[in-house]
Amino acid sequence: MTEKIALTPKTHTAPPAKFSHGVKKGNILQVAGQVGFLPAVEGQPPTPAGPTLREQTLQTLANVKAILEEGGASWEDVMMIRVYLTDVAHFAEMNEIYNAYFEAQGLTQPPAARTTVYVGLPAGLLIEIDALAVLG
Amino acid sequence: MTEKIALTPKTHTAPPAKFSHGVKKGNILQVAGQVGFLPAVEGQPPTPAGPTLREQTLQTLANVKAILEEGGASWEDVMMIRVYLTDVAHFAEMNEIYNAYFEAQGLTQPPAARTTVYVGLPAGLLIEIDALAVLG
Amino acid sequence: MTEKIALTPKTHTAPPAKFSHGVKKGNILQVAGQVGFLPAVEGQPPTPAGPTLREQTLQTLANVKAILEEGGASWEDVMMIRVYLTDVAHFAEMNEIYNAYFEAQGLTQPPAARTTVYVGLPAGLLIEIDALAVLG
Repeated sequence: MTEKIALTPKTHTAPPAKFSHGVKKGNILQVAGQVGFLPAVEGQPPTPAGPTLREQTLQTLANVKAILEEGGASWEDVMMIRVYLTDVAHFAEMNEIYNAYFEAQGLTQPPAARTTVYVGLPAGLLIEIDALAVLG
Repeated sequence: MTEKIALTPKTHTAPPAKFSHGVKKGNILQVAGQVGFLPAVEGQPPTPAGPTLREQTLQTLANVKAILEEGGASWEDVMMIRVYLTDVAHFAEMNEIYNAYFEAQGLTQPPAARTTVYVGLPAGLLIEIDALAVLG
Repeated sequence: MTEKIALTPKTHTAPPAKFSHGVKKGNILQVAGQVGFLPAVEGQPPTPAGPTLREQTLQTLANVKAILEEGGASWEDVMMIRVYLTDVAHFAEMNEIYNAYFEAQGLTQPPAARTTVYVGLPAGLLIEIDALAVLG
């Protein structure tokens, strides 16, 4: 039987419920929905990187990446990125930030597929992202 | 060629369209979006377990579990759980119910990753859940 | 190392950001969120197939299918279809169109699992669909 491994970067606050920030089993790695929380500080509640879409998007992407790396994966392995925004008006700016971020990653494999939809999120959060990766 | 198998627990009402409640192919099992409908009664329309978040969440989780088991899987195999709520104000209560439910399952492997977002659902439904599992 | 391949049908406009319309790696194929844009015409912006749910749903399904075929897959291989609608009132009509479409495909394997939720989409778009397939 293949083991399912929880991926819990040291930078991450404990999940607010009984779920894992990421799991890996065989060659499949799933990253849970990440938001723009700064690296955890003991004794302090989760704190967003800032009020702006730019701050939150970059922190969210960093949080996804930390989980990928915890599982021995990278953006190269990611097949699907789901982006949840709260406001259709944020689409163009998110894309700009997203494009610049991934250009800076210098990937050699094609970018992941993506779906972007507009949903409700907890107050103060503008973006949530999850990801599915296939390793190897 | 690996066969794709439809997973249709006897407790389930027929899907309202041409989709399967769950499918398994090789080691991948996908559970369709489940809601809090009680076990099917012939000749009766699908009926929610009740109006409350607690009733619907527990029934929804039971419905997901029935599909997993129909495919020879269990919660242990689940990599990702997507929770769709209609109201951000339900998050804390859903987490309480979710945590107690999974504690009672006595799992030995780490919990699945999860994304929770707030969307519209058909009238009367407060929660929808789907799940991706990797077997073996 | 297994290569990740971008799937870019000739009919498709360039994605509005650094993502792929579809990717394939090993036996996993992921289709990005598709909407009802007509086949690309050079020098023209993406244009929806029409204002109605019927036109957009059929074009969206055609766009998903084109990506599957670009990856050597078909609807037979699809495990999960995620349908994003903007209005709960569209559910019954979407199901009618969906059912007729899939009946016409003459599939021999069971239909994919599905989740339908109601979200915001860019102005003028009534439906978005993505899909996960397992090949072989």
